[in-house]
Parts: sequence; C-alpha cells; structure tokens
Amino acid sequence: MSVAPLKNDVFLRALMRQDVAYTPTWLMRQAGRYLPEYNATRARAGSFMGLAQNPDYACEVTLQPLERYPLDAAILFSDILTVPDAMGLGLSFAQGEGPRFAHPIRDENDVAKLAVPDMSKLQYVFDAVKVIRRELDGRVPLIGFAGSPFTVACYMVEGKGSDDYRLIKSMLYARPDLLHRILEINAQTTALYLNAQIDAGAQAVMIFDSWGGVLADGLFQQFSLAYTKKVVDMLTRDREGRRVPAIVFTKGGGQWLESIAGIGCDAVGLDWTVDLAAARRRVSDSVALQGNLDPIALFGGEAAIRAEARRVMDAFGPVGHGGHIFNLGHGISQFTPPEAVAALVDEVRTYSPKYHGSNT
Amino acid sequence: MSVAPLKNDVFLRALMRQDVAYTPTWLMRQAGRYLPEYNATRARAGSFMGLAQNPDYACEVTLQPLERYPLDAAILFSDILTVPDAMGLGLSFAQGEGPRFAHPIRDENDVAKLAVPDMSKLQYVFDAVKVIRRELDGRVPLIGFAGSPFTVACYMVEGKGSDDYRLIKSMLYARPDLLHRILEINAQTTALYLNAQIDAGAQAVMIFDSWGGVLADGLFQQFSLAYTKKVVDMLTRDREGRRVPAIVFTKGGGQWLESIAGIGCDAVGLDWTVDLAAARRRVSDSVALQGNLDPIALFGGEAAIRAEARRVMDAFGPVGHGGHIFNLGHGISQFTPPEAVAALVDEVRTYSPKYHGSNT
Repeated sequence: MSVAPLKNDVFLRALMRQDVAYTPTWLMRQAGRYLPEYNATRARAGSFMGLAQNPDYACEVTLQPLERYPLDAAILFSDILTVPDAMGLGLSFAQGEGPRFAHPIRDENDVAKLAVPDMSKLQYVFDAVKVIRRELDGRVPLIGFAGSPFTVACYMVEGKGSDDYRLIKSMLYARPDLLHRILEINAQTTALYLNAQIDAGAQAVMIFDSWGGVLADGLFQQFSLAYTKKVVDMLTRDREGRRVPAIVFTKGGGQWLESIAGIGCDAVGLDWTVDLAAARRRVSDSVALQGNLDPIALFGGEAAIRAEARRVMDAFGPVGHGGHIFNLGHGISQFTPPEAVAALVDEVRTYSPKYHGSNT
Repeated sequence: MSVAPLKNDVFLRALMRQDVAYTPTWLMRQAGRYLPEYNATRARAGSFMGLAQNPDYACEVTLQPLERYPLDAAILFSDILTVPDAMGLGLSFAQGEGPRFAHPIRDENDVAKLAVPDMSKLQYVFDAVKVIRRELDGRVPLIGFAGSPFTVACYMVEGKGSDDYRLIKSMLYARPDLLHRILEINAQTTALYLNAQIDAGAQAVMIFDSWGGVLADGLFQQFSLAYTKKVVDMLTRDREGRRVPAIVFTKGGGQWLESIAGIGCDAVGLDWTVDLAAARRRVSDSVALQGNLDPIALFGGEAAIRAEARRVMDAFGPVGHGGHIFNLGHGISQFTPPEAVAALVDEVRTYSPKYHGSNT
C-alpha cells in the first residue's frame, strides 16, 4: 500500500514518550451521536451496524470530528462487538436498547462450539481502515481498536449489557475452566483482528477493557489482564518503518495501574478518578498516560471546561520524559454540546506547550 | 431507655480494633428481597415505603436474617432517601423502576427553598430503632445509617437513579455554589438524623457514599468527602457507656482510602476491587476495614463461596492490632440463594479464629 507521509505525528511521538511541542488530544467516541453530521450519516446508513459495516460510511463518520476540531488522531469507527458477531453469536441492536446477542454463551456446549472466526468475516473492518487511511491522507494517525478478551466475554455471556455481571461472574466463580476457554479464544481472535487492522493501516491500537474494573482484586489479574497481555504479546509492533504503539484502557482500573503498565503496552488509559500526578509517580514514566477528563465536565460551560482541562494538564505537570495524551476518561456523552469540544481542544492546544520541551 | 446488656459485642469490638475471637460478619442489605420471608412481609406492607415507615414491619424484616444466620450485627431496615423525602421532595417508588422524586432540585430557586427538615418527619425511623432494640434484646448490636451528603444529593438533583450523573455533575461544574449549598444542608440534616438514631438506640452508624466514586479525583475530596467529614465531626460518639463507632463506605473509593480513613471514622468499608492486604498497609491499621467479598461470588456454589471468603480473610491476614469486619463489597443481590449466605457465614465463623488473638 502506498501511503501519504504523516504530517502530524504528535500523538504517536507522545505515545513513545518522545519530545513534542504540545499535548496531543483525541476523544473516546469522538465520532458519535453528539455530532449532527454523524446522526445524518447514520440515518442514511439505516442503523448502527449499517454504518459500521459500510467502509465508506465508516470513513465518513471517522473523519467528521477532524473537520470540526484540530484533533491529533482519528479512531476507526467500529464497535468492539464485531468480534463476537463474527463468531456467530448474532448481534443486533434493538431500538433504544443497546446490543443483544441471539446466541449467548452460557454452558459447556456453547463453549465447545466457540472458535476463532475466519478474519474474512471482518473484512469490512479492514476495508474501512484502508479507506480511512487513504482519505486521511496523512493528516493524523489512525487508531485501530478492539475490546479486551474479558470485556468482549461479558457481552458474549450476558448476551447484552448488565448492571451486575451476574452471569459471567457466576461462570467465573462456578466454572472458571469455561471462562478461561472463552478468554483464550477471545485473546487469539483479538490478536488476529488487531494485526489485520495494523496490516490494513492502523498506526496505533487501543484495547478497551471497559468492564475489567468490575472484577475483584486478584481475579482482574487472572481473568482480564492476563488475556489482555496475551493480545499485546502477539501484536505486530512495527509497520511502515515505525512502532505501532498499543494503549490499554481499563475503566475503573486505576488501582491496578502498575500491573497494567507492566504488560508491555506503550500507554495506559485512565479514567477521571485517578490523579495523574500520582499515576506518573507510580509507573515512573515507564509508559505514556492517556486521559483523563470527566466527560461530564463538558457540560459545565466554557470557563469550567477550560479550568478542568488545565487541572488535568497541571496534574500531569512538565512532561519531561513522560508522555501524555489528552483524552476523556470515558466515551463522550451523546448529549455533549459540540462547541464544548471546541473549547476543550483549544484549551489543551494553547495551554499545554508550557509543559513541553524547552518551555518546561 | 432501659436496655438489655449486649450479649455479642464482637462487631463493636472489631470496629474499635480490640481483641475478638473471630471475625464478625454482617451483610449490606441483609434484610432484603433474597429472603422469602422478607418478600412476604413486604407484600403485607403493600410497598417498600409502607415497610420502611411502619416500625413493626421494619423491625420484623430487620430481624429476619438474624433468625436464619448467626450474624454479628443487625442493620436498621430503612432507605437513604427518607431524608430528601422529609425535605419535601416527594419520594415514590414506581413499579419496577426504582425511586423517583416529584420535586427534584435543579436550579437556584429549588436550592433557595431547601432547608434542614424537622426531625419529627423522620420519627418513624427513630421509632423503628427503638422497637428493634427492644426486640433484639441485646443479641447483637444495631447499626443505624444514612446516605452521604453527596450520594443523597445525587438523587435529589437527578430525581432518580442515573447512569452518568449528568445533572448533578453539570451543576457541580457550572454552579458549584448551588451544589455546595445542597451539600451543606444535607450534612447538617444527616448529622441530626444519625444522632437521633443514636439517641433512639443505634449502637454504630454507617454512612453510605454509594456514588462518591463517580467523581473526579480532587472533586471527590471537595464535594463528597469534605461533607461526610462534617457529618462525622458532628456525631454523638458515646452512648450507654460505649463508643458509637462510625463506618464510612465509598463504593469505588479504594483509591482514596487514606483520605477516607483520615476523616475521623472508626472503620472504612471497601468494595471487592481492593486488596485488603494493601489496604491495611496503606492505613497502618489506623481504622478497621469492612468488606469486601464480591456479592456475585455468592452465585458460585458452596466450594467457591468458601474459597472466596477465605481469600478475603487471608488477604487481611492475622488481625493483630487491626480490625476486620467481614461483609460484602456491595449490597447482596436479590437473586442470591439463601443457602449461599449460610455457607458464607459459616466459613467466616469457622475459618477466621486462626487469625485472632493467641491463635495468630
């Protein structure tokens, strides 16, 4: 594949803890329902999966936030549930109800039938990556992503979202062998999936462990982190003459930061409950940190947004040999006013240089 | 009030980090829907508030788990939302929908009208405490409780449960003065409320900060912990010739353990994401710790329940000059099989003595 040279590599450099002139920014779920243009494209696509499975639509919505805001990275528009869908679990999105699987994994028979799917079933994702890379034309890097083996297993076992994760945790406590088997298949699949995204052009990858934080201490390490590590271990790390950095984000995982930082990833995502100053000290700048504004701070009006953004940057402090990627601590709310994002991105761009390079 | 001498003070002694022969146990929401006898009483009472507002029914359900299991404490059957109900916010429980307030607090006018309610509006709670103390007849101590000022404010502003706490956080970011005013009123009210429970016979009190964990680091300390501290500062600490210990539980608050332990409470409740061994080290046994089994471990079958209970006790280790009260890390699930609780309580009672006194 012939690709345009990268014009803005601030995000990739920050992930590698290299010198940059300012703190790069992107936002989890930046291509989403808070943008009217996203809703318009989605209406044309007919459904969420219609959007995700059509490379041209996926490209269109991926690029939309970049047209509005000077963000430093694009992230593939897709969903972590494409993987279990490819495994044959029958994903659907009921109106206003979130995702559901027709064939959840509940018992020994279900687990026995589960297998690593052929990656050709996810070709639409890799095609989207290729189209997006072409259309990005080197403006900013493109992030590929997947759910963590445990997080994807939550949906596979519960069959939908859950308040208490009773079904998957019951399996964990009563039949850990079954859950380990699911997690092993998920880890193998996720590594193939992310590597195919990297082959198609993803310049960094992120693993979303959205639900690892619901596990007990000790069990998080065994049932979530160990399998995320397996994925990280299998990742292609060099493409197009550059390192492909890997970011791991466990929502609610602040207490396990040192362990997460130790699995071989380049960066750890943090939610807003974590003090970035303490987090840096705990990992001794051995990884970059991504985060961690409360997404609801975007509802506070411009002055509060700017003040809260500065509070995050001040907590990280002079970047030195660390690496900071500004982000929210969770996906942006669908109710966010688009102008709030403009204020946020502007504040990070104008305030952060004082913490970089010869300015520090 | 003439009261029976306390026959089992293991819970109160453990809270004070005094020597005990075994680790005491009680379970958050131990009087609840997982018990058929609770459901029968609730059916007779007609509704949740019918149960909570009738001292005889409240007493009946409070005692039910003690009839089944050798627990070391009773906890008043009530709800943290009795307080905003007494403030005139109009609490109701819609069928299958959880609590709702007819008059949520959203703007400056709503806040201006808010005031510390007359405690006579909560007389039914204090009457329930008296009836329960009489019927307990000194078997085990009775715990009184309230929500933290911030947690109660969440319901007052949102008007019901929330996924993202968008309304209260919008107020926090945009109009912190309004939220501080609500929190001040809540703190004053909560102190009066808990002291009236203590006057009526509560022998320990617990403050449930169920939602403080949704706040950003820095803001948790200002908007939740500071007001919980105000309550603790105002508490009556001696009654009937004994210390009335105070327990503070912030769900998701493990990262702030040292700060929580520093507000003058006797014990800190912890959820299951926290390693009790690390937690003890962090607070140097300056407070007792309560917790922290994942409530969903009760779905794993007897062998797993016993193993997970031992894992909690092993993490705490030899109790020495510390204090450990065994509990779940959150309220018991309504779907819990009652026999699971029997296995849990038995395991703690039979396994824990090795970690106490001359056995260590």
